[in-house]
Amino acid sequence: MKKHNFGAGPSILPQEVFEQSAQACLDYNGIGLSLLEISHRSKEFTAILEESLALIKELLHVPDDYSILFLQGGANMQFNMIPYNILNDDETADFVETDIWSTRAEEETRLYGKTNIIASSKEANFNYIPKDFKVDEHATYLHLTSNNTIYGTEFFEDKQYAIPVVCDMSSDIFSRPVDISKYHLIYAGAQKNLGCAGITLIIIKNEWLGRSKRPKSKMWDYSIYAKNNSLYNTPPVFTIYTCLLTLRWLKKLGGLSEMENRNKAKAALLYAEIDRNPLFTGHAVPEDRSRMNINFVSTHPEDEEAFLEFVKPYGIHGIKGYRTVGGFRASCYNALPIESVQVLVDAMQAFEQSK
Amino acid sequence: MKKHNFGAGPSILPQEVFEQSAQACLDYNGIGLSLLEISHRSKEFTAILEESLALIKELLHVPDDYSILFLQGGANMQFNMIPYNILNDDETADFVETDIWSTRAEEETRLYGKTNIIASSKEANFNYIPKDFKVDEHATYLHLTSNNTIYGTEFFEDKQYAIPVVCDMSSDIFSRPVDISKYHLIYAGAQKNLGCAGITLIIIKNEWLGRSKRPKSKMWDYSIYAKNNSLYNTPPVFTIYTCLLTLRWLKKLGGLSEMENRNKAKAALLYAEIDRNPLFTGHAVPEDRSRMNINFVSTHPEDEEAFLEFVKPYGIHGIKGYRTVGGFRASCYNALPIESVQVLVDAMQAFEQSK
Repeated sequence: MKKHNFGAGPSILPQEVFEQSAQACLDYNGIGLSLLEISHRSKEFTAILEESLALIKELLHVPDDYSILFLQGGANMQFNMIPYNILNDDETADFVETDIWSTRAEEETRLYGKTNIIASSKEANFNYIPKDFKVDEHATYLHLTSNNTIYGTEFFEDKQYAIPVVCDMSSDIFSRPVDISKYHLIYAGAQKNLGCAGITLIIIKNEWLGRSKRPKSKMWDYSIYAKNNSLYNTPPVFTIYTCLLTLRWLKKLGGLSEMENRNKAKAALLYAEIDRNPLFTGHAVPEDRSRMNINFVSTHPEDEEAFLEFVKPYGIHGIKGYRTVGGFRASCYNALPIESVQVLVDAMQAFEQSK
Repeated sequence: MKKHNFGAGPSILPQEVFEQSAQACLDYNGIGLSLLEISHRSKEFTAILEESLALIKELLHVPDDYSILFLQGGANMQFNMIPYNILNDDETADFVETDIWSTRAEEETRLYGKTNIIASSKEANFNYIPKDFKVDEHATYLHLTSNNTIYGTEFFEDKQYAIPVVCDMSSDIFSRPVDISKYHLIYAGAQKNLGCAGITLIIIKNEWLGRSKRPKSKMWDYSIYAKNNSLYNTPPVFTIYTCLLTLRWLKKLGGLSEMENRNKAKAALLYAEIDRNPLFTGHAVPEDRSRMNINFVSTHPEDEEAFLEFVKPYGIHGIKGYRTVGGFRASCYNALPIESVQVLVDAMQAFEQSK
């Protein structure tokens, strides 16, 4: 039985991505070779890469003065690479602290320049998004984490700030339309809404390529990736193909506006049950509730283990919360069908009735 | 028709790896989830990672005072990470230059310390392995590239030097038994003999963890990978699974001694034909001929295009040589069966007869 996968990441992808990836492992497009054994310089992979980049540009309406790069290493690697590439020793980056991911990004940035945490919701166990903060107009950039997987909060607005914005969109990219022009750099580990684990997407304003003055290693220099169309070295061929398949699925379904509608519907369904059901309570404040990661706890803590057991016969997978929040986390990424959310709601209601 | 894949990399893997990878994309071990959607913290992936590390240790007889790490980014990334982690600003690394890969490694190292190219075969278009070189006893390490994909030369001996040795084994690791104790650090982009593109294997002597004194970013610090069993961040789950499947296949076939015998037999078959057939001539000097990448050219340069056309009906794929050598390169990695080499030899003989 196919499980209802609410895992936080690596996470569910569309069923047709699994099927087409499997076929490509056996024989890619009938060429007599597995996708796993073709050269990254082959015409087949060149076509995969180019179509992927074109679809990202089309779906996100990326302006022409931005470069789209594929790198390895996940968002954690970018916590270093961003200040390494952008920030000079005597410059400052501002951070809004909304999760351990923004904390990690800030800590790594200290190796390359100065940092300021200008706002934080740490004192409330990160259950809200700080809004009344003032950026330092002399800072080089403001760093935001748009969706916070552990605590289930999300920025939904692409705001204009007085300084350039860097945004970690690892867990909500492609879940809604984004006004790319409001950001100088967007980065995203792909293993939520884009593809399987092992690739990172960077969208960077061209004027920022080569910004920091330090001498750079080639593989840590965004300019090298931009100049070589992400083919300076061997990229993860199979992983990029899973991105292409997911992007094709996104386009076929109607793009990011349609995806946003679906994600709103899924989140509304589950939050309504959390708010109605006396056995559960949400973690994040209502106005900042993430559509991607829906965190809730039992009103009676002794129920938590029982509920995790209770949902197993429903085929519900991956809803155990992160240890710093406890309770439950239902991740509702793009590929999770609303039917899975309905099954979880049914299970919550049945659990209530069993009491 | 399944092609005979002589591509230089990403390259052929065992047929059963393709089949089992495909099955895992659909459903991993009957758990109701694709391998592409499972968490890197799941018990399933933990088992994949642990078995992979254990098989590497077993097959290569890695001594207990070494750590085995999985990183992303390929060998190119290690050209930076090795000096970053090992070499202090005032220290020197010695290089033997045998290919563009060792050249790139040396160039990147200059960012972190001093370098010396103590031997090079550049003047002979890298057609041999320099042997009469003297290491600087005050250097921190000697860097070697054990197999040179473009020029088709290979070091076969694990020699003891007066200083620690760092070796790029990207294209011949697992092709023969290796005396790991002769090296302080071995690195290998996996996409030849280990798995699909997107993972790098590091085998490092524990006393070298944390060696360089510079403050380090977490994702660029070998110690972080060692402490976290390569799970500080999300690793490329699927890619590591292809490594596990390949390692299981290696063990089942009899391990690295058996693999060395097979590779010797394949190389002997093809080099014998190159030496016999008046239409072809080898690039590398006989004593340094690689078993992995067999480079040869036409004795009549005008035949080259014709031969590339001639072999197509045989299902022979990927034998066009790199532009700096020209001619042909038949890569004979572990997973290439001797039957494929025989087909190439047959084609060479038929081409001769067609003249």
